Amino acid sequence: MNNPFKPPIVILANGKFPKHEIAVKAFRSAGTLICADGSYNHLASIGLKPHVIIGDLDSVNDLTNFDGLIINDSNQNNSDLEKCIDWSIMNGIKQVAIIGATGLREDMTVNNIMLLYRYFEKIDLKIITDHFTIFCNNGKNSFPSFKGQIVSLIPQNSNCEMYTTNLKYALHGNVNNYTNLSSNESLNETFTIESSAPVIIFCAHQNL
Amino acid sequence: MNNPFKPPIVILANGKFPKHEIAVKAFRSAGTLICADGSYNHLASIGLKPHVIIGDLDSVNDLTNFDGLIINDSNQNNSDLEKCIDWSIMNGIKQVAIIGATGLREDMTVNNIMLLYRYFEKIDLKIITDHFTIFCNNGKNSFPSFKGQIVSLIPQNSNCEMYTTNLKYALHGNVNNYTNLSSNESLNETFTIESSAPVIIFCAHQNL
Repeated sequence: MNNPFKPPIVILANGKFPKHEIAVKAFRSAGTLICADGSYNHLASIGLKPHVIIGDLDSVNDLTNFDGLIINDSNQNNSDLEKCIDWSIMNGIKQVAIIGATGLREDMTVNNIMLLYRYFEKIDLKIITDHFTIFCNNGKNSFPSFKGQIVSLIPQNSNCEMYTTNLKYALHGNVNNYTNLSSNESLNETFTIESSAPVIIFCAHQNL
Repeated sequence: MNNPFKPPIVILANGKFPKHEIAVKAFRSAGTLICADGSYNHLASIGLKPHVIIGDLDSVNDLTNFDGLIINDSNQNNSDLEKCIDWSIMNGIKQVAIIGATGLREDMTVNNIMLLYRYFEKIDLKIITDHFTIFCNNGKNSFPSFKGQIVSLIPQNSNCEMYTTNLKYALHGNVNNYTNLSSNESLNETFTIESSAPVIIFCAHQNL
């Protein structure tokens, strides 16, 4: 059964509400907007409403005027963002963009980005921030880019093989804790990464 | 030989300059203030100067009025913050507080926090942000706290044993990808953590 929710599916997490046009455009283009618990408060404060609210609802100020779908999930063993992703997978959703995942508490910023390792094989997830589009890849793939785009990499394992094409600082084999994987640069309209372990890829919206 | 640099040693990294009083106090109390490359620009713009600047100096706008120590390290295989930490270790410095490590680019925020795993056995490092004091621990240790303090944990390995005392959600054995390690809460003036692998600990300055 196909899921009944209109794409694109966008989750608004509890971090900083984005300002960059790419993130704002993703937010505005949502066919289905899902609020992770308290992120609803910010939306309501600017006169907007999501289609779905998911969480333990302990952070939502006032649901009086909300007539969308409420998923009350009181499980204390996962975060509100995890609840939203789990619910998306359960409903057969294949692709999700997450905004508001970063920019406030650093524990949540790191954890939210690290979630990509856990979920990327189950659902096509990308986190869009004021600086980057962030996703996870394993194996060999090609990615759309632009010349000069800053590309940073964080592999899941501190010791893995990685090969790249069209990146300024080419990787061709073993990377470890001491290999600088930040602020690489795309040389063309695509680049490829082949890795022996999952790697989180940060693609900058513009020069940073 | 003891290092000749006056403690406390504080590194100012290139992220967001902090506002929280705990971070600002750490900055103001520096006996030796080290700027990671371009972070000097911000200081200079508010009429302040560090004692040391370390980096490839490609981001520093103008050094005309700087009469401190300049360490020009053009190695492109590590970040400016790594150069500062390496230099501190090389100079026999035992303890460093880092501010400005987070809050702007997410690739740098994650990488800077992950550096704690690499360095914590070589130097006593803590990152102080607008929300947390962040450090790394292995084995069993007790930490100063306050009742209600939010404590978040990120273990280096997705599968490790962890035991805690004085935390609201007690850990007593195996943790994995699905154990929620964010937003735990201290129940007393100290808490202990015993872990079979290094774990990054975020201690909140106050209720978040």
